[in-house]
Parts: sequence; structure tokens; C-alpha cells
Amino acid sequence: MSVATHTTDRRLFRRTAERFTAGAKTLPQRYFVSPEVFAEEQKKIFSKHWLLIGHQSQIAKAGDYFVAEVGDESLIIARDQRSTIRGFYNVCRHRGTRLKEGTCGHASAIQCPYHAWTYGLDGRLIRAPHMDEVQGFDKADYSLHPVNLGLFEGFIFVNLADDPMPLEEWFAPLAGKFSHWNMSILRSAKRIEYDVRANWKLIFENYSECYHCPGVHPALSKLTPYDSAENDLCEGPFLGGFMSINKGKSLTMSGNACALGVNGIADPGRAHDRDRVFYYSIFPNMLLSMHPDYVMVHQLWPQSPKRTLIMCDWFFHPKAFERPDFQSEDAIEFWDMTNKQDWHVCALSQQGIASRAYQPGPYSPRESIPAAWDQEYLRVMGQV
Amino acid sequence: MSVATHTTDRRLFRRTAERFTAGAKTLPQRYFVSPEVFAEEQKKIFSKHWLLIGHQSQIAKAGDYFVAEVGDESLIIARDQRSTIRGFYNVCRHRGTRLKEGTCGHASAIQCPYHAWTYGLDGRLIRAPHMDEVQGFDKADYSLHPVNLGLFEGFIFVNLADDPMPLEEWFAPLAGKFSHWNMSILRSAKRIEYDVRANWKLIFENYSECYHCPGVHPALSKLTPYDSAENDLCEGPFLGGFMSINKGKSLTMSGNACALGVNGIADPGRAHDRDRVFYYSIFPNMLLSMHPDYVMVHQLWPQSPKRTLIMCDWFFHPKAFERPDFQSEDAIEFWDMTNKQDWHVCALSQQGIASRAYQPGPYSPRESIPAAWDQEYLRVMGQV
Amino acid sequence: MSVATHTTDRRLFRRTAERFTAGAKTLPQRYFVSPEVFAEEQKKIFSKHWLLIGHQSQIAKAGDYFVAEVGDESLIIARDQRSTIRGFYNVCRHRGTRLKEGTCGHASAIQCPYHAWTYGLDGRLIRAPHMDEVQGFDKADYSLHPVNLGLFEGFIFVNLADDPMPLEEWFAPLAGKFSHWNMSILRSAKRIEYDVRANWKLIFENYSECYHCPGVHPALSKLTPYDSAENDLCEGPFLGGFMSINKGKSLTMSGNACALGVNGIADPGRAHDRDRVFYYSIFPNMLLSMHPDYVMVHQLWPQSPKRTLIMCDWFFHPKAFERPDFQSEDAIEFWDMTNKQDWHVCALSQQGIASRAYQPGPYSPRESIPAAWDQEYLRVMGQV
Repeated sequence: MSVATHTTDRRLFRRTAERFTAGAKTLPQRYFVSPEVFAEEQKKIFSKHWLLIGHQSQIAKAGDYFVAEVGDESLIIARDQRSTIRGFYNVCRHRGTRLKEGTCGHASAIQCPYHAWTYGLDGRLIRAPHMDEVQGFDKADYSLHPVNLGLFEGFIFVNLADDPMPLEEWFAPLAGKFSHWNMSILRSAKRIEYDVRANWKLIFENYSECYHCPGVHPALSKLTPYDSAENDLCEGPFLGGFMSINKGKSLTMSGNACALGVNGIADPGRAHDRDRVFYYSIFPNMLLSMHPDYVMVHQLWPQSPKRTLIMCDWFFHPKAFERPDFQSEDAIEFWDMTNKQDWHVCALSQQGIASRAYQPGPYSPRESIPAAWDQEYLRVMGQV
Repeated sequence: MSVATHTTDRRLFRRTAERFTAGAKTLPQRYFVSPEVFAEEQKKIFSKHWLLIGHQSQIAKAGDYFVAEVGDESLIIARDQRSTIRGFYNVCRHRGTRLKEGTCGHASAIQCPYHAWTYGLDGRLIRAPHMDEVQGFDKADYSLHPVNLGLFEGFIFVNLADDPMPLEEWFAPLAGKFSHWNMSILRSAKRIEYDVRANWKLIFENYSECYHCPGVHPALSKLTPYDSAENDLCEGPFLGGFMSINKGKSLTMSGNACALGVNGIADPGRAHDRDRVFYYSIFPNMLLSMHPDYVMVHQLWPQSPKRTLIMCDWFFHPKAFERPDFQSEDAIEFWDMTNKQDWHVCALSQQGIASRAYQPGPYSPRESIPAAWDQEYLRVMGQV
Repeated sequence: MSVATHTTDRRLFRRTAERFTAGAKTLPQRYFVSPEVFAEEQKKIFSKHWLLIGHQSQIAKAGDYFVAEVGDESLIIARDQRSTIRGFYNVCRHRGTRLKEGTCGHASAIQCPYHAWTYGLDGRLIRAPHMDEVQGFDKADYSLHPVNLGLFEGFIFVNLADDPMPLEEWFAPLAGKFSHWNMSILRSAKRIEYDVRANWKLIFENYSECYHCPGVHPALSKLTPYDSAENDLCEGPFLGGFMSINKGKSLTMSGNACALGVNGIADPGRAHDRDRVFYYSIFPNMLLSMHPDYVMVHQLWPQSPKRTLIMCDWFFHPKAFERPDFQSEDAIEFWDMTNKQDWHVCALSQQGIASRAYQPGPYSPRESIPAAWDQEYLRVMGQV
């Protein structure tokens, strides 16, 4: 669906949105505080869905790898000698030892720090001292355990399920939708990690509406009118749309564009994208915010009912980095400030929702996307 | 009952006390370490009884408020525009957000920091942006949730029960008993918070006897003989009596009176109160220590079986603050030292009681009030 | 069994070792992460077996005492006026108060810091103020609760069971085996405590093989060949043997002997011990490492499935301390470095084993003792 189409259909999705908000209320308390619900989410959602874990630019060359934490699991994501991106559980097949500490690096093989068992970047065990003395031992039986892995628009996703829905099938509704943003070639200029004292669902609900913008984000509200949202994805696991940016402005501290445009800015059919910021939530752990001059991506990692780790990257066009007009900090600082404003109110919600006085409250018409997100969540949890 | 009366009845309550101590032993281990017992206490005691939460002098003017933590709950206690003291759960009716952070302040209304829903100090919702677009939405349905609140001698008490015993009925046995101490007009000069590694019941048991004074409180023991206790309340939820203060002394670092007297000191019928300190425990979270020149009040807030938060205030006559003989630090420093001595031995008891070797031990005749307190506790818990 | 004998029987125990390793795999995940298994271990192992708690040299004179933590328990180990070593639960019989804080000291009696009840070093209650007023109270009923205690080669062991197997019976298989090491007269020059993020069983498994030495301990591997182990105790609760030390070397930073020899070094029949280091694991909490010039002893104290507290002592001949060639730091520094290398890989194993990808892995022939240790552990836990 092109942008032009959804602008035409504006009345239609306004109606769709209202369908969700009529009488819609926030989720009951247990969804935000219960360890049992959290465990169920880990099982039904975070062990079954495709999870954003990084971007292919993080491992540009054969031998590059990074370590990623997925819930209680640690994974090694590596580009092997044939340039294939692979993922493995970070666990030696001998005595279970964590193979790689630290966050990233470059290696020709993966050697266990304990007894020096050594694996190729394709996961095959290639050396295990003294094990040839053991009758019946076959190296081929002791490859690293692989994890399902796939790419969408240059982003790396993993899936911990034994037999997951193919990645292409999962992302089929978004096929081609973002291709003109060139995201597979972008590079991150900065990653900031946030340890947020709030349930992960509060982060999604917060991201999905700008009803809170006037009070919470005074600087943002000056650049993008809080009531300018036009949503084209209004139900299901992918939700969102765009908001207007005031003429000639950019979402930066200075209000000016901070880098070479990321998308096909020369394409006359995309001219109106120059004054728009697109916000999409990708169930269950990605927030995708596409600006004319950069793409911001949040990864969400629930740690407990009350705590979420968030990693935020700012991606730019690879050619932007070398140019004299490259001012990435102008965007990073702007959103770092705005992120912290959001995390603060999310933490306040977490606190209040834990009270015996909390009851589900009524969503306003400006909160149709949070309501739609809740519906999708409940569907996945088998509650509706 | 006047002081004169209970002095006459001295032999009587000595006998009463002995009734409790004959064979009385400390509580079994589970009452001090079990999370299940702790949860039961939160339910049967801290969610059903009137709890000390502050003093009316903390919110002297209309618009003044303070935030108080009661177990896992946060409450806003405010003096509204008509000067009525009110209490509310600190939870927005929209999305559950904590409304007020910080400990106290002054405001004309309560505005949610998230989406700017705004409530009057009487709790009524007075502004909710865009909600008039929602069919059937009525502001009157979304007032802040009130909490039961009452005053006794100027102290503010709350009760989380749906339908609690009226405060006046609860405190009826103490009606008029403390009125000559003028506590409703006193003001706190200082609050100190203590994080104590002991079960809350150990704090009560410690407060209720001076058998430990010679070894634990050498300075206190020089000012008030450890064996001078005369108790007039020997069973039930309110327990205690007075101890003698050595002639011409005061419970201060210097041993001298540190402020204008708090009670009707000119009243000839109260002359002997000048040489006495009155100690009363008010079930389940108040310790009331009335000295000739100041009133000390402890609030107890159990955090876990092994941990109690204690807030201690030192109250003085409002006229005392302006006088040249006002030396509040002389009293504060004295009791801060004495408090810490007590918390230390309470923490040591907590440690030892957790041992498999612990068995209930025999109370001495000097520990009749701890034994009576235990009985009342067990009665409320439905164990006797 | 003498060293000479087991050298002769070398082929025999090689075969024994192989019996264990053929097909032996590491323990399943639950043994390293489950709180239920941990609780069961505390019950079946740490509340039933003889546990190393110290050495008699720590309380050389009558009146000396030390406090030791055993799981959740605190014990007072004292040498009484008749020079008998005794152990008591650190719990007052009155109100359960912890009697002694701190780690060690010298005292003529044990007085409770709360109400001054006082006990002799033999545990008898000798003073309890005001308790003579209580009808039927008899001091003889309120002695400190004793703990079972015994000595083996100068080391102090306790047993929390009501009716434990006698210490002599437990250690019968080791009777006389270590006597020429003079361990009952040695003195510790240093104790280092380590807080290790690994299950206690991983520490035993790590101690029991040198398959990991080439990669983990480059300095150690230069002094003692990793494949030189000769084990004479290959099944049951006591496991281990010796490794060769390169001619003229010692396990120190400098590679030189650091102190007067600890064992009967003048005995010509023991000459080959000068080039050997003996490593024995004593189930369930002692690692005994006997070098020509010092004895290193580890005490293990499991704190949770994922955490173990380890106390390491370096013992020397009492005559060594005064000599000019005494360089205890040369040994201490060497093993402190080596210990930390071990704890690091143990912590990495703990992390990896917690993964859903972990499966029991195959032990190599160089890991026969870890496999034997696992068997003994499972037997004690009633799993085989």
C-alpha cells in the first residue's frame, strides 16, 4: 500500500480506529505486574515470534560477530567465511561454558575459554583435545546449536521456536512497503541503552499515541503537531503511520536536517515524505521511526514484569557519514531527551498500575493504536 | 483514667502483668521469617487497621499535600480548598499513572504528568482532554479513589479497608487520655528515617520493655531508672505507661530540658508529669513517647519479614520554636543515638531467630508488655 | 595406601578411571540452576555431612573463639577453659538474639548484647537477670544449643545432623594417609575470600581435572605438566592424587620454594613427595592441596544455585614463619591468580548451562575424577 493510497483512504482508517476505541479500556493490572503472565509472555511471545536482534551492518565482514542477549539466552551472531550470517547459542557442547563474553569482535573460529574446544564460524566442531580417545565420539554430533535467523530490510531477526513461521511469511504484509528507505544499507551512528522501570507493553502503548505529547514533550510538539497522526496500519502485529513535520523542520535539537536524506529523496513521487515522520511498531520488540534524514530503531527486551531493557540505534545513509553537513548528535540528543521523557511517564504508570486502586481506564479517541496493540497482544496470548 | 488513679492501682496492674508473664514465651520462628505470615499480616492487620500516616501540621494550609507510602500503596494526603483533609490513591483514573512524585508540596489541583487529566483537591475530575468526544463518558465517574481517613489528637490515620470500624470507635478507650498533651497543635522539628533489618514485631517488643536498658542504653539508664516502669494499659491494642525521670533531668544529651513544655505544665494536678516520660504503643504502627518538653512519635512500615522502615518525628510546642531556650537537637540527638542502639539489637534478634536452633524463650517479669503485645497480635491474626 | 603402592598400581586406577568416563556426561541442567535441587542439597548434604569449618590453630588458647557461617546458620566455635574445642549455635536462649558479631575474638564468657544473659564457654547459662523471679525457671534448661564437632588432622568439622555418623568413621578411609604432612600443627598465613558466581559443584568439577590447564593456567602449566596426574582415590567421597612438579620448581610466582617444608621432608621414604603436589577433594566442602612447602585449603559454602562463597587458606609449618627464607606471598599470589582463573571459567560454565540449549556433554578421559565426583554426588542425593 503506497502512502498516496492511505492518504486517500483517510476517512476509512479513521473509522477503523474508532471501532477500537469505542469503550476500549487499558489492560487489567495482572498484565503489568504478574510473574506468571510474564512467564507466559516469554513462552508464547518471546520464544515464538521473530525478534529484532540487530542490523547486518554490525557484522559487515566475514569473521565479524556480536553477542546478543535474548531473554535469558545469549546468542552469537556471526558472518561466516562464506559471508552467510548465522546465529548460535553461546554454549559449548562440552561442559556448557559460555563461549564468547563481551559484545562484539572478529574471529576466525570460536574457541571455548575452558577446555579449548574449537568451532568454525559455521558452527561445526573442528577441534576437541583428547576426545579422539573416546570410543564412538564423533565431532559431527557436537556442532553448536543453531538459532533460526532471518533478515528483513537489513535487520537481523531470530526466532527461538523449534519450527517457526518462515520470516518471509511473517513479514509478507510489509513486503516492499519500506524498500524506498534503503534500510538494508544504512549504518548506525550510535546506540544508547536504557534500563526502564516499566513493563514492556507500557513502552508500546506509549509509542503508539501522541495524546501525551503536549505535556510530556514540549520540544517535539513544536516540530510535529501532536494531532497530525495519520495511521495506515490499524490492526494486527504491525501498527502505525505518519505524523507531519512542520515545513522546513527536522526532529533535531536545532530543528534543522542533520544529514543526507536516507530515502529516495530525489524521487518526485516521495516528495511529501520530506515533511513526515513514520512511526511503526513491529510486534513484539521493534519500534521503527523513519525520518527524512535518519531512521531510529528501538529494540525492547523485557527483563521482568516491571523492567525493560531498551536499545536505541540511530541509522544514517552510509554516504552521510563523510559529508560536512553530518550532525548526527543533533538527532541523537533530541531523541535521547524525548526517550527519557517517555520512560519517565512509563515508569510512573508502572507504579500506579501496581496499586489496588487501579482499574482499567478509558482510552481516548487519540489512543486508537494503543487499543489496537492491546487487542493484538491479547489475541497472541490466547485471551480473546 | 488519670495518672493518680493508676498510681493507686499499682498493685493491681502488677498482678495483671504477672498473669501474662507466668510461662509466657516469645513467638515461634515463623512469625518473624515467613513470607506467608507477612502476607497474612498485610491482609489482616495493615489492610484493616487504622494506620498512623502523619500529623495535620504537615499540611497546615489549604492546597498543602504530602505523599505517603502505605505498604505497596502510595497515597496523596491533601488539605482541600475548604480546609478538609482528604486522602486519595496516587493513581490516575485514565491509564493508572502515579500522579504525584516527591514527598510534599502545595497545589491548586492535581494534574497527571502523562496526559494532563486534572483533578480538584477534593478528588473530582475537572479536565480530561478529548474525552468529551467519547460517547457516554462522564467525568463524575472518574474521581480519584478516596481512602478512609481520620484524625486522633492531631495525628492523621488511614484505613485501607472497604468498611472499617469508625476511627472514633477504635480510639474510644483512649478518649481524653492524652488531651492535656496538646498534641493536635504540636509541630515536628525533625524527621529521621531508619531502615531496620528486623521484623516489625521485634520493634514493638523492644519498645515495650526496659529490661534491656542497662546493657543497651547506658546514657538513658542514667536519666531514667530501668526498673521504674508503671504500666496502666496492660492488655489490648494500646499498651504502656510511664517511667520516672531523675529529678531535674530531661531525656536529652545534656540532661537538661530542651524546650518549652508541651503539656499543661501550669496545671497543678499534672505536676508529677514533669518527672515522667510516657511510653505507649498504638497497634499496629505507632509508638508514642511523651516527654515533658517534647513528644516523639515512631511510624513503623513493615517492608518484608526481615525489614522495617521507621519514621521518627520530634514534636514541640509551636511557641517553643521561637524561644531562645529551644534546643531541639539536644533531644533529637539523644533519641537518634538511643534508637540506633535499639535497632541494632533488634537486627541481632532477627538474625538469631532465623536459626534452626531458635525456640521460643521465656519472658522475664520485666517483659510483661511484650508478652501482652504478642497476645493481642495473635488475637488479631486469629491464632488464639 | 602409601604413595609407593599407588604408583605401582598405576595401570589399575587408570582402568578404574576409564570405567567412569566411558560414556560419562556432565550433570543435567537442573542440578545447577534449580532452587528446589539447591534446597534438597542443603537438606541431604549440608545438613547431614561433616563440613570443614576451620583449623584448630585459629583458636590456640583457652577463651579464643571464632564465628562461622554454615549455610543460613551462624556458629560460635570456642576453646573452653579446659581447652576443649566446642561449637554452639550463635543464638541466645532468651529472645533468640545473635550473641557474637564479628569473626573472632577472646572472651571469658559469652554475654548476650540484648538483655545480658551470660553463658560459660562450655555453653552453660550462668547469669540471667530477674529470671530467678520466674517460678520453675532453671538455668540448666537454657544452655546454648551445641553443634556436633570433631577434628581431623587439625581441621575442625561440624555436622548439623541430630545423630551424625561419627567423624572417625567418616574419615576412616583416610586414616593415617596424610599424617606425615603434620597438618594439625600448621598455621594459616593468609585467608582470601572469593564470591564466585557459579554453582558449588562446578568448583569441584573444575578442581578435579587439569584438562583445562593449558588454556586457563599458562603459569601453572609451566610448573606442573597438565597430563601428569596420578589419582589414587578414584571413587567415593574422597577423590584425587598427585601431579608432578618440574624438577627444582615450586608452585609459586618465582617458581622457587617459598618456605620450610611442611611434611617429613627428611624422611628418605618421602623423597619423591618433594616433586609432587597432592590434590584431594573431600566431600562436600573441602579442597586439600598439599605442596612440599605449604598446604592450601579451600572451604566451599554454597549461597544459591548460582553462587558460592569460597574461603582459601595457605598453611605453613609454624617454624617457617620466623625464618629468613619465608616468602608466603610467593605462594599466595600464585594461587590467588590461579584461583581467579578458575572462578572465571566456572562462572562462564554457570552462564552457559542455564541456557535452554545446554545438554549434558561428554567428559574426556582427562575428566575421570569430575565424573566420579558426579557419581558420588548423585548417590548421596539418592538419584542413582
